[in-house]
Amino acid sequence: MVTSMSAEDHERRMTRTARAAEDAGLAGVIVTPGPLMVWLCGYTPARFRGLVTALLVPVEGQPRLLVPAEEKAVAERATGAAALAVTAWAAGVDPYGLIAKWTGGRGRYGVSDMTWARDLLALQRAAPETSYITVMEALPMLRTVKDAFEVEQLEAAAAASDAVYEAVLGLRFAGRREREVAPDITALMTEYGHEVIAFAVVGSGPNGADPQHEAGERVIDSGDMVVLDFAGLKGGYGSNTGRTVHVGPPSAEERKVHGVVREAQQAAFEAVRPGAACQDIDRAARRVIKAAGYGEYFTHRTGRGIGVLPHEPPYLVEGEQLPLVPGMCFTIEPGIYLPGRFGVRVGDVVTCTETGGRWLNGSDRGVGVVE
Amino acid sequence: MVTSMSAEDHERRMTRTARAAEDAGLAGVIVTPGPLMVWLCGYTPARFRGLVTALLVPVEGQPRLLVPAEEKAVAERATGAAALAVTAWAAGVDPYGLIAKWTGGRGRYGVSDMTWARDLLALQRAAPETSYITVMEALPMLRTVKDAFEVEQLEAAAAASDAVYEAVLGLRFAGRREREVAPDITALMTEYGHEVIAFAVVGSGPNGADPQHEAGERVIDSGDMVVLDFAGLKGGYGSNTGRTVHVGPPSAEERKVHGVVREAQQAAFEAVRPGAACQDIDRAARRVIKAAGYGEYFTHRTGRGIGVLPHEPPYLVEGEQLPLVPGMCFTIEPGIYLPGRFGVRVGDVVTCTETGGRWLNGSDRGVGVVE
Repeated sequence: MVTSMSAEDHERRMTRTARAAEDAGLAGVIVTPGPLMVWLCGYTPARFRGLVTALLVPVEGQPRLLVPAEEKAVAERATGAAALAVTAWAAGVDPYGLIAKWTGGRGRYGVSDMTWARDLLALQRAAPETSYITVMEALPMLRTVKDAFEVEQLEAAAAASDAVYEAVLGLRFAGRREREVAPDITALMTEYGHEVIAFAVVGSGPNGADPQHEAGERVIDSGDMVVLDFAGLKGGYGSNTGRTVHVGPPSAEERKVHGVVREAQQAAFEAVRPGAACQDIDRAARRVIKAAGYGEYFTHRTGRGIGVLPHEPPYLVEGEQLPLVPGMCFTIEPGIYLPGRFGVRVGDVVTCTETGGRWLNGSDRGVGVVE
Repeated sequence: MVTSMSAEDHERRMTRTARAAEDAGLAGVIVTPGPLMVWLCGYTPARFRGLVTALLVPVEGQPRLLVPAEEKAVAERATGAAALAVTAWAAGVDPYGLIAKWTGGRGRYGVSDMTWARDLLALQRAAPETSYITVMEALPMLRTVKDAFEVEQLEAAAAASDAVYEAVLGLRFAGRREREVAPDITALMTEYGHEVIAFAVVGSGPNGADPQHEAGERVIDSGDMVVLDFAGLKGGYGSNTGRTVHVGPPSAEERKVHGVVREAQQAAFEAVRPGAACQDIDRAARRVIKAAGYGEYFTHRTGRGIGVLPHEPPYLVEGEQLPLVPGMCFTIEPGIYLPGRFGVRVGDVVTCTETGGRWLNGSDRGVGVVE
């Protein structure tokens, strides 16, 4: 069930951000257009014009949104606008100078990770006494911990992705090129409500053994294992399903390798609990695959965060010690890639709850048998 | 006629960049994924993973492309790869430390305008003695001056956009909502080869008088002026056509206002010549509209650059003194917006040649009469 954000919801997010910034010893955060701005105040410039736009959420006082004059009316209609002071800058005004006036020209600020160098260098120049750190580094829990609305949206996107996979099982694979099957998958994603397609991997036979493969010229044959992995955005939130299907009944070895990957995914899922480190989830999956003798063939990390972007922090990878917190949402997608032969990947979206993991995806995780 | 880029073409662009950097007193340029990286070496990460990727074009020595290990094979297949040293960084390595080693930890570098704060702050931290300036500020001629391949691509995109407009004239307008007509336009853009839609404006009657309007609920009526403005990417290069159509025959006043806008566009076009400042083109258009008594109703700049992005520098606006150079490509799109009544905009893509402007678009610029 998808609900809508209200101005109060956005206000809560901005207040939570201000408190987190204060706790981290910052004077506030400065955010330029992108996912964090959408998340905070629901605003995206109506048309990309390369004109300076910035949201300042100070530790004290009302958040301010600076937009070019042409965008003012649009900005004032943003969901979170009621909680903001919207200021327009007109041609001939230095917008960075305005921001420097607001910050008093000093203090340490969190800045959105994807803020352009153009803006950051201009901010540094307009106020040489200020310093900056990315929001992800300073406030790692802010975006990685989803609120109830976001988990709901991700669950709706996952349900759509489940429906896509069910329909994909009815597609014809044998005798078609990978790059002919991929558009069928993306068309289904659109049909089931995705407004953005991030990727649709079709890796048949030996192509499936390259975890970077997308979809190529190879004609899929009877007896092929086929790695499928598709991701996009539905209702502004990410979906991602990874499955391995087989054209006709799989062999004993194929079933065995697939079983190891599923077991690894399950072990990783069971390791999810508040306080576990991201790397613990990766280790849990890797342990199973290593014990089965395939350790060297699991060549990528176990998963990554998902939200308003289909790929975002946190990363479930060795070395990432960020602890899991209820509300974090991420993929768990281990794989085994046997060079020159075939690959297997099984991936789903999971959220961390107070008591452990909860699957957001629900489609069958076995080897899908296709024609 | 669309041709393909070769490794040598990319090498030439990188050499031109190194020379421009040297002339500007820089030690080189550092470019992260985005249009400038595509332009320089033809590489885009196969999948967005948020993993550090950077191209260093030093003033002396071979350009180097740093990619995550998972991307190495893909990067080595990029069109410009033969002119590059491709280095992969593996998990556990600090990629910014590697770049600092390459730069020797000192010097002033141009950095792509859209480089993320995450990367710029990390570069500043890894090598505190280095300093940065955006490529657009340091080397404004580099991207704004298109080479022959790029002008060819823009011309092909403009031809497709002309064909779209011809087909748009056959659409039904009367009795349909703006937001019902807009998808017909974007479908035609796709049909004529656009892989990216940037926007499709349908501004009927009073909605046309808001230059920021996209397409809304208003039902288009007989007797309406309708501002159409659509832009996208075809073959990786931008197209943009602005036209004003009328449902049935236009009135004398509507024809008069439209005539002023066309005259303004023509005057701006005729002002295009090497050495003219960007603001001169804006002034030429504005002079005509002001003389006709509509000066206060032309509320936006006259045009902006177009290339691998549908909107990019240079901007044809008062205050922009950048001189035009043969190879620059930009829109010329003046308008008159009569609040509460109707708007008119006529926009096309133009390139500056040794002898003056050359239209890349060629569709009829008169009031299109539709049903």
